[in-house]
Amino acid sequence: MADPWKECMDHCLEVTKEAGKMIQEALQKDISIMQKSSPVDLVTETDQKVEQLIISSIKEKFPTHSFIGEESVAAGATSNLTDNPTWIIDPIDGTTNFVHRFPFVSMSIGFAVKKEIEFGIVYSCQEGKMYTARKGKGSFCNGEPIKVSGQEDITKSLVLTEMGFKKDPEHFKTMMGNIETILTIPVHGIRSPGSAAVNMCLVACGAADAYYHMGIHCWDMAGGAAIIREAGGVIMDISGGPFDLMSRRLIIASSRTIAERISQVIKAFPVGRDDIEG
Amino acid sequence: MADPWKECMDHCLEVTKEAGKMIQEALQKDISIMQKSSPVDLVTETDQKVEQLIISSIKEKFPTHSFIGEESVAAGATSNLTDNPTWIIDPIDGTTNFVHRFPFVSMSIGFAVKKEIEFGIVYSCQEGKMYTARKGKGSFCNGEPIKVSGQEDITKSLVLTEMGFKKDPEHFKTMMGNIETILTIPVHGIRSPGSAAVNMCLVACGAADAYYHMGIHCWDMAGGAAIIREAGGVIMDISGGPFDLMSRRLIIASSRTIAERISQVIKAFPVGRDDIEG
Repeated sequence: MADPWKECMDHCLEVTKEAGKMIQEALQKDISIMQKSSPVDLVTETDQKVEQLIISSIKEKFPTHSFIGEESVAAGATSNLTDNPTWIIDPIDGTTNFVHRFPFVSMSIGFAVKKEIEFGIVYSCQEGKMYTARKGKGSFCNGEPIKVSGQEDITKSLVLTEMGFKKDPEHFKTMMGNIETILTIPVHGIRSPGSAAVNMCLVACGAADAYYHMGIHCWDMAGGAAIIREAGGVIMDISGGPFDLMSRRLIIASSRTIAERISQVIKAFPVGRDDIEG
Repeated sequence: MADPWKECMDHCLEVTKEAGKMIQEALQKDISIMQKSSPVDLVTETDQKVEQLIISSIKEKFPTHSFIGEESVAAGATSNLTDNPTWIIDPIDGTTNFVHRFPFVSMSIGFAVKKEIEFGIVYSCQEGKMYTARKGKGSFCNGEPIKVSGQEDITKSLVLTEMGFKKDPEHFKTMMGNIETILTIPVHGIRSPGSAAVNMCLVACGAADAYYHMGIHCWDMAGGAAIIREAGGVIMDISGGPFDLMSRRLIIASSRTIAERISQVIKAFPVGRDDIEG
């Protein structure tokens, strides 16, 4: 049987390349920064322009499809995932990195049908790495197959997570406490690259063994979720239960052993959901 | 007057390119890991081979010069800096990254005469970025001039530091407390790339605004010290006093304002010196 979503994935790749050029050009220029809610939550004109380009191009070709995009949600759209074919888009993942020209800046697109992710594409623009994955067909970086490290021993693992200032002192304390807990297992190290989608791809290609995060959004995870699964990795909720795209939290790892160990030792703090208002 | 050290810098660039190829080839192969003192302190056969290649090539051309190399010191050599022309070498900076193929792996060489650094070269092997700086002549990445961001406002800055497990609970607590202090200033974010020399270059080219670290070695800092200074950056001791290559600690920043602010808010823990035995 022919792949019913091949045309969508082909178009996704085209639009990603086009939008990627827009980001690369913007990285050469001065950037006018517009602050959202806090200094670590920056958004640029480029962010909005890139999302508009992606959505309008896809809408023209697939007018009945739905969209969940970071900038559209910021502008008031909802992010309820239905059974309809849905494009989940982060035009620039790692906006702070983008503003500073720190090397990890990516575009992430995940495509879900009946709430299941069919394919994902993450383009790490400054590295020039295009990660792609189609359900059941494996993961690739610039066309070359990639797979997770397969590491089972957490004491030999390199772990990714992100640290940010949190207004709630309890949440901040829990976040810092989790980093302390992981470091004292001990592990080989913790790295913080600053782009959730890139972090997922780094684990998918074996450059790191695990990544956990609370407080991210569905558009940060949708593309990477396909890539990590198809690379042989494990994706689960912070609780150790099944991964939930709308839950704003995830653990991914090179093996179930490592993912479960992380879920056992870290503590959760409330982060809300993407599909509940406010 | 002709530059008395031009021949040395030219030779340094040649040997860095040659050794860089050796690292790039090794990154394609399986690696036999030999553990030094802890899981985060890994050393590979490649590390030793690369240092031997660099030192033997330089010794042949400049037989009277001195050397301080990470692997030579690990094998029992001293790291006393004298007035003699001295090559300070880290064959692979970011050994943990190297073992995991995490994208930041570099080679760092600094050249000091009468205890002053005359030039520095850092080669970020996987990124393919060759950073060079000669005293008074500016800093370059792949031949293009680079400079720091010039940022003066710490609340708009991206800060680099590294986190690792420390046996002494007090040191560990201080390290984690410093990260908390920086995050709550607040800053745009903290990133941990995992290679001290690359961190210095990221600040030098404006991709980050500051970097602080306690517990690193002279071979991690010597090459980068030239690059950050020539890119218009500031380098100082954790105390706010003058930078001391043998002190195992540093702050670098895009401006004196930011460097001083960091020195005022973070706490030091004892790390020893590179030029004192044991």
